[in-house]
Amino acid sequence: MQTIVPDHDKKNWICVIGPYAKPIARIKPGETVELQTMDAFGNEIHSESQTLTDIVQMPFVNPMTGPFYIEGAETGDMLSVKIEQVEIARDFGISAIIPDFGGVCGTSWTRTLNDPLKARIFKHKINGDLITWGQGLDIPKIPIEPFYGTIGTSPSLEAISTLSPGFHGGNMDDPDVCPGNTVYLPVEVPGVLFCIGDGHARQGDAEVSGSAIEVSTRGVLTFNLIKKHPIRTPRIENDEYIMTVGSARPMEDAARIAFYELILWLEADYGIERIAAYQLCSHVAKVRLANMVDTLYSVSAKFPKEFLPIKRR
Amino acid sequence: MQTIVPDHDKKNWICVIGPYAKPIARIKPGETVELQTMDAFGNEIHSESQTLTDIVQMPFVNPMTGPFYIEGAETGDMLSVKIEQVEIARDFGISAIIPDFGGVCGTSWTRTLNDPLKARIFKHKINGDLITWGQGLDIPKIPIEPFYGTIGTSPSLEAISTLSPGFHGGNMDDPDVCPGNTVYLPVEVPGVLFCIGDGHARQGDAEVSGSAIEVSTRGVLTFNLIKKHPIRTPRIENDEYIMTVGSARPMEDAARIAFYELILWLEADYGIERIAAYQLCSHVAKVRLANMVDTLYSVSAKFPKEFLPIKRR
Amino acid sequence: MQTIVPDHDKKNWICVIGPYAKPIARIKPGETVELQTMDAFGNEIHSESQTLTDIVQMPFVNPMTGPFYIEGAETGDMLSVKIEQVEIARDFGISAIIPDFGGVCGTSWTRTLNDPLKARIFKHKINGDLITWGQGLDIPKIPIEPFYGTIGTSPSLEAISTLSPGFHGGNMDDPDVCPGNTVYLPVEVPGVLFCIGDGHARQGDAEVSGSAIEVSTRGVLTFNLIKKHPIRTPRIENDEYIMTVGSARPMEDAARIAFYELILWLEADYGIERIAAYQLCSHVAKVRLANMVDTLYSVSAKFPKEFLPIKRR
Amino acid sequence: MQTIVPDHDKKNWICVIGPYAKPIARIKPGETVELQTMDAFGNEIHSESQTLTDIVQMPFVNPMTGPFYIEGAETGDMLSVKIEQVEIARDFGISAIIPDFGGVCGTSWTRTLNDPLKARIFKHKINGDLITWGQGLDIPKIPIEPFYGTIGTSPSLEAISTLSPGFHGGNMDDPDVCPGNTVYLPVEVPGVLFCIGDGHARQGDAEVSGSAIEVSTRGVLTFNLIKKHPIRTPRIENDEYIMTVGSARPMEDAARIAFYELILWLEADYGIERIAAYQLCSHVAKVRLANMVDTLYSVSAKFPKEFLPIKRR
Repeated sequence: MQTIVPDHDKKNWICVIGPYAKPIARIKPGETVELQTMDAFGNEIHSESQTLTDIVQMPFVNPMTGPFYIEGAETGDMLSVKIEQVEIARDFGISAIIPDFGGVCGTSWTRTLNDPLKARIFKHKINGDLITWGQGLDIPKIPIEPFYGTIGTSPSLEAISTLSPGFHGGNMDDPDVCPGNTVYLPVEVPGVLFCIGDGHARQGDAEVSGSAIEVSTRGVLTFNLIKKHPIRTPRIENDEYIMTVGSARPMEDAARIAFYELILWLEADYGIERIAAYQLCSHVAKVRLANMVDTLYSVSAKFPKEFLPIKRR
Repeated sequence: MQTIVPDHDKKNWICVIGPYAKPIARIKPGETVELQTMDAFGNEIHSESQTLTDIVQMPFVNPMTGPFYIEGAETGDMLSVKIEQVEIARDFGISAIIPDFGGVCGTSWTRTLNDPLKARIFKHKINGDLITWGQGLDIPKIPIEPFYGTIGTSPSLEAISTLSPGFHGGNMDDPDVCPGNTVYLPVEVPGVLFCIGDGHARQGDAEVSGSAIEVSTRGVLTFNLIKKHPIRTPRIENDEYIMTVGSARPMEDAARIAFYELILWLEADYGIERIAAYQLCSHVAKVRLANMVDTLYSVSAKFPKEFLPIKRR
Repeated sequence: MQTIVPDHDKKNWICVIGPYAKPIARIKPGETVELQTMDAFGNEIHSESQTLTDIVQMPFVNPMTGPFYIEGAETGDMLSVKIEQVEIARDFGISAIIPDFGGVCGTSWTRTLNDPLKARIFKHKINGDLITWGQGLDIPKIPIEPFYGTIGTSPSLEAISTLSPGFHGGNMDDPDVCPGNTVYLPVEVPGVLFCIGDGHARQGDAEVSGSAIEVSTRGVLTFNLIKKHPIRTPRIENDEYIMTVGSARPMEDAARIAFYELILWLEADYGIERIAAYQLCSHVAKVRLANMVDTLYSVSAKFPKEFLPIKRR
Repeated sequence: MQTIVPDHDKKNWICVIGPYAKPIARIKPGETVELQTMDAFGNEIHSESQTLTDIVQMPFVNPMTGPFYIEGAETGDMLSVKIEQVEIARDFGISAIIPDFGGVCGTSWTRTLNDPLKARIFKHKINGDLITWGQGLDIPKIPIEPFYGTIGTSPSLEAISTLSPGFHGGNMDDPDVCPGNTVYLPVEVPGVLFCIGDGHARQGDAEVSGSAIEVSTRGVLTFNLIKKHPIRTPRIENDEYIMTVGSARPMEDAARIAFYELILWLEADYGIERIAAYQLCSHVAKVRLANMVDTLYSVSAKFPKEFLPIKRR
């Protein structure tokens, strides 16, 4: 099993997902690899007394491990990535209030004349599977629920900031990109050029402040190719759900994309005519608001497998 | 226990929530009442072969049971409504595709030149706790999860369509308005003028097609007043969560309202300073997309009680 | 010519547009009337040193003159209101920064944790046709361009805050509601129940701070009915343009409504097939952002009459 | 005067703006250059009977002329581009209905289950300064108002589709990028890497169908650098207005960015304290909706120079 390590030299950080970076690893379909990831701050924060604005200098944030070249992959294939394991690689996590970034404040896009919120770093001790949240709060320890905030494949022409989610995956911040689940991504360039990073020890729906409990990780992934199976937007699957992720602004457009793709998937693979699928989703689907803070918002529409047609499952 | 029945005469249907309708019942704080509700189509659909557009004539839809006058209630109080029971009052539910209405189609607000989706009625048999979805689909029976789609209190001046959710509650379509949960609503006029209706046998997150499995109901509610406790937006509570509901467009504004109110609630009642509460929500909060189809979208932000400060719970 | 005066007693202010208020005047189709309007603050601000939050207590703002009962009007008619004259009734205008209200700040709907902007009153001297803006700014005097910010007809069931624009007109804050122009509004109830107010000495596109130069006015209007001519959204006409106004959130939905209605108008009255009309609008239409601050945003789509079909004009 | 010609070989088309393409020309500050541009369809459409979907294959559309390397330019400078001349290079323009693209229809982002609008090509004859719109419509000839739909500078890391506007400029579709006006753009990489294209013979506000009257052009531009003058978003200036352009979704965020930047410009360069500038904009600013169809919407906020402080102009 090959082990892939990110480049820790800030000059070479991969902070965009696109076709212009040279692959750092070659992977065969069916192969399982081990990899390390830096946290969204490039592992540069270790204390609450550091000065956040010295460290976070947009767009040089959220460095990826990658790109990986998947052998034999061609435009129009679908990449399958089984998340086997996400292990937290250190004994603390970091979260932050980043001025002009977040879900309940003025931002670079929702521009306001109000004074920005003040930068602030939170350090959270992690001991085994439990997080001590800190700040003197009298609350119980919080179990970890680790996953990757960012996972994506190269678009054909664009190079997209690792702060952005989109049709290519990217910074979706969807807690369903977690151990046990399989993520399906579009292949738009030969070799895929897959990137991953942004480990989260735990995140609430919406990632409302703009940061999860950010950690470096060691993970294990298994890659496969489904040939000639173009998809427009990421899909996720586990024992309970088939899921689609839409990323857009306003948030209703993210939800529209997610449901549209889920409905067409139910039609194509499970034989439920699309208007019936639309109505059925209205009665049994679940929705996860993955993020409401990134350049695009991400919404996941989830169909429970227990209500799929019995013979087609 | 008094039993309150809606007016089944279409001329007298209550299709707005506001201060201009005469109360149909007077309730004392602490009182438990039984009530009946019509479905969102005024109980007028019973067959898939009816012509939907003959029946659904905006804005004469979603008739309420109410208004109820709560004795002693004054502007600035908070109304507490414990949902004791929601029983489905018949052996079928109705759902529909309503042209220019729904989550993944052009609508009266997201106006498009595309041809509208065709009107279509779905009838779903209900036997005890199980729904036979129908349409010849080979899927298992679906358990009921009944709740009220619409629950609200009168604004001070406006009369708001029962199709609209808002700061007054209204048509939130939030499945957490269900048996066992308590809903808190603002009191803006003397006597509250409370309305309820729009029973759903079951609904997915988002109510994406625009209709749940719509049913008439018999329900049991207990009313209480918390004096001099103004709130800006509905709250819900059960053993697991404290929740706030924001209704707005675009959807991110609904989420902003919900989280803002949740954060201020955590600060006021649980002593978590607001920026810490914001960050903590980013790590443990849940979000429910209640509806993405009504005149305003509704998003519920949910804080798990297990992570509240130990001494303050 | 009858003269209609608003009720200056704050207890009786009309701050909603709906079917529940008693008409204060009866008008015959073809009649020209003179009327007075209070400013959006009910004429209660006259000095920069007053305390804004004592005066502005939502939703008791923007009082109307009305409702007017138009004789013979029935649901499905179209009301025509020619704005003959808007005269400023005093020698100053008021504008304000209202906390949690405005276009470039957190608001009650776009809720943020940032500190709100501070309340502030601006008084602007008006002498004849010229405004001295004040604040010690070394800028030229500004010509007045008076119009009505709010003009609307009663919905069938709802009573809508005079802060809200919508399909009924209302608080559109569209500078094209000015002398020389004709406004067409839907009739949803017998007698129309027309309201008007919110005089502006001048306003920029978007009314970005949330207030124009607010004034009391004396105006002259001529009313007419076009029988059996239902419209869904307000229209405006002058020598240069036919215009439609859409009010919605997000802003693109306001623009979609406006263009959709403009395109269907071009098809119905000027014989331009709708897809050609859509394309032609893409080449010659103008857009005015009327407001980006009210409960709904208002966008006006304007088609230049010079490019209408020659024989149909 | 050097003349710069785009690469007409489809394999080498520049359809992204970013730091990864090799400059095709080097320009000195102060230099005036002549250049040619292809239309948004790469000059491949010349007849209404062609099959649009064969030609428009996203994202290989809207090819640029560029990038240009501006000598001496460093990150943090501001590029000034005076549009001296835009001449239409042929005797016809093309517009189109592109399925899933446009302002009043379902799109790739505002996903709907409705059937898409049908692809359709419109050819418009251009004779001197007049456009014969065609389609058998009995309307007068339409004067040309030529400008560039797309003009931008390279971001530091991202490569952005030429379909997208943004902080870097790009596909704003703002008719104020026209002869006589000066466009100011941020410099994010050494040498700027400037691109331009997407000539429009004429476009309405909003470009509502998704296409203007698309033409190839010959243009003349003069480039200058303002050293150490970082700006966040494009600015435009002419004799009448100073203007800022915001590009975002939803549309209100585009307007917020534009006004925020205009207000800070008024403060920094004209000495109007920002809250007064905000209020003054509310009374005299103009807004242009440049596009409501691209991946981000573009809104321009315009301050009339006649109301700038007299001594500072």
